[in-house]
Amino acid sequence: MNNFIFHNPTKLVFGRGQISEIPGLIPEDAKLMVTFGVGSVKSNGVYDQVSAALVNHNYIEFWGIEPNPTVETLRKAITQARENKIDFLLAVGGGSVLDGTKLIAAGIVFDGDPWEIILKRDGENSIPYGSVLTLPATGSEMNRNSVISNKATKEKAAFISSRYPDFSILDPEVTFSLPPYQIACGLTDTFVHVVEQYMTTTGQSRIMDRWAEGIMQTILEIGPMIMEKPRDYDLMADFMLSATLALNDIIRMGISQDWSTHMIGHELTALHGITHAESLAMVLPGTLRTLRKQKYSKLLQYSERVFGITGGTPEERIELAITRTEEFFSSLGLSTRISEAGVGVETVEMIAERFNKAGVAYGENKNVTGDVARQILMESM
Amino acid sequence: MNNFIFHNPTKLVFGRGQISEIPGLIPEDAKLMVTFGVGSVKSNGVYDQVSAALVNHNYIEFWGIEPNPTVETLRKAITQARENKIDFLLAVGGGSVLDGTKLIAAGIVFDGDPWEIILKRDGENSIPYGSVLTLPATGSEMNRNSVISNKATKEKAAFISSRYPDFSILDPEVTFSLPPYQIACGLTDTFVHVVEQYMTTTGQSRIMDRWAEGIMQTILEIGPMIMEKPRDYDLMADFMLSATLALNDIIRMGISQDWSTHMIGHELTALHGITHAESLAMVLPGTLRTLRKQKYSKLLQYSERVFGITGGTPEERIELAITRTEEFFSSLGLSTRISEAGVGVETVEMIAERFNKAGVAYGENKNVTGDVARQILMESM
Repeated sequence: MNNFIFHNPTKLVFGRGQISEIPGLIPEDAKLMVTFGVGSVKSNGVYDQVSAALVNHNYIEFWGIEPNPTVETLRKAITQARENKIDFLLAVGGGSVLDGTKLIAAGIVFDGDPWEIILKRDGENSIPYGSVLTLPATGSEMNRNSVISNKATKEKAAFISSRYPDFSILDPEVTFSLPPYQIACGLTDTFVHVVEQYMTTTGQSRIMDRWAEGIMQTILEIGPMIMEKPRDYDLMADFMLSATLALNDIIRMGISQDWSTHMIGHELTALHGITHAESLAMVLPGTLRTLRKQKYSKLLQYSERVFGITGGTPEERIELAITRTEEFFSSLGLSTRISEAGVGVETVEMIAERFNKAGVAYGENKNVTGDVARQILMESM
Repeated sequence: MNNFIFHNPTKLVFGRGQISEIPGLIPEDAKLMVTFGVGSVKSNGVYDQVSAALVNHNYIEFWGIEPNPTVETLRKAITQARENKIDFLLAVGGGSVLDGTKLIAAGIVFDGDPWEIILKRDGENSIPYGSVLTLPATGSEMNRNSVISNKATKEKAAFISSRYPDFSILDPEVTFSLPPYQIACGLTDTFVHVVEQYMTTTGQSRIMDRWAEGIMQTILEIGPMIMEKPRDYDLMADFMLSATLALNDIIRMGISQDWSTHMIGHELTALHGITHAESLAMVLPGTLRTLRKQKYSKLLQYSERVFGITGGTPEERIELAITRTEEFFSSLGLSTRISEAGVGVETVEMIAERFNKAGVAYGENKNVTGDVARQILMESM
């Protein structure tokens, strides 16, 4: 196990009716800006609950943080926040609203254009912020990650905020009205987050392995049930909690991580507008097949512990586990091939070239260069 | 899943050589008291490392917090801390030193005798404190629990601090010199902590079940290996991390809990001086056998997922799982029968009477009264 520091101070407020707890979570004299997406909270009752809870607070609203939030939109929010001397933010929405709000919180106190924060990968400072989560997927409600897009340059990149959310309110009932596609994406995003932290080398930490496997087993078990019964409270509660636990630093204590599937997926989103989770469903099987030798022991452990595969040769077990992974994404209704989204060889070449030009190399062994990304994408064709 | 709030702000600083990070974790101008047990840190090098790290801090030392820390000792520490206007505590030791330090931290700012805090079960206020952990077992390094004994009245009871440790430093290397009996106790304590949070009813949370099972599987796997190789860094790191994760609020999100084994065990410690973990090893099998019907489904799940038992009737599988649990404790060298510690029927009656007189009833269904405790103890004879 490697040395590590774990320090996650986010207060998780979980369950039915918890949006009404907002008044105790935000200072009464805060100069508050509430941030929203493109409007779904108005039809599912969340906007009304938040408004009712904030009746004794002064606040302004900022609307229009889009899926794959753009720096172009967030610049406007930062300007408006500065004009109003905002000192607390409340994000109401899914991972995109939260990610965008992290950049607003950092941008308010940053002397320069917010895209520079992304380029540095590092938010040096931030005002406090909390969230009301409406879509389990990104884990953004209990971590410091933020992924921002740049419309002008067709780029998508991440930075680490200096601050965790002060609080996040997770009421599983707010997910009842989500469309099946968004649920499928949330389940997939959660699953792949775990794979990125798990599928490296064996023997780093037994307890971290068990906890990662526990989330994957849970998602595989509840996935089909949720697609059948998206208004089952206990199922959605387990989904919502699993999504948070999948990416709040807990399952990565003292171990190496991969994240090459995400980095390649971000390019597909930036260049072709493919939904984040669907880009992961397309890339992950290719990553596992391409890096099969490097990840051999862990793939065997995965096949046995997560899928219960014990028969056949090791090679057959590994192939079956990858196929089952792919089938799980398909069963949720997602594409698992880039060709199905109209991505051709030109895009593959463009991504390989971008990686090579930037001199980046991802993965636990820092060997997923542009050339390896090309192999992975051709495997995902 | 029940509604819950999770908010654990302790900074975990984990790994080799991390004691040297102390200077950055305690304010330079703190009026610091460092608390110790009965002296083992002087022989294992921890005292020297802590002293070296604190070279630029002003501090006083308080020695002598005993296993099952007594309010009698802690009163002295509180008096000394007040005289020196102490505003930060650093506990250096195992769970007892930490538990005792929590009472000192609360007692300094409490207007009254510290035993009143225990009687109220609630520490209303506390000065900040951190820890350097030397023995993985109680989880005290990342929770608000504290168990204190009263020598005069032969009582042992718990209170909840208002404050989590600000930080805890966990260097697995400091465990290398632990005697086998203490390691056995730490493994057992960790395992039973998980059982107390897990062995209730099924279907409350799939992900919490998986994570509890993950810790139990890890402890069962590493236990025998650690007894063979107590200086294997990776094994001790997994043990140390598992002990912390077993009782830092993570695996109890939104679920009911039992804790009757602990409450009965505390009486055995208070009346007969039996080591905490050994009292749990003696009581747990009796608890599971006595409450077999109530815990039926969960016992079946436990037998299948934790021990891999799939053959035989459900009754046989449950009995085998309980036997395996008992055998695990025995294999570590602990007694699993109260008679082996000289506990007779008179003590059993005294405990039953204490429970009945206090009108208490423990367990997830609040039905472990004095009479049920008698049954459990007779089963453990």
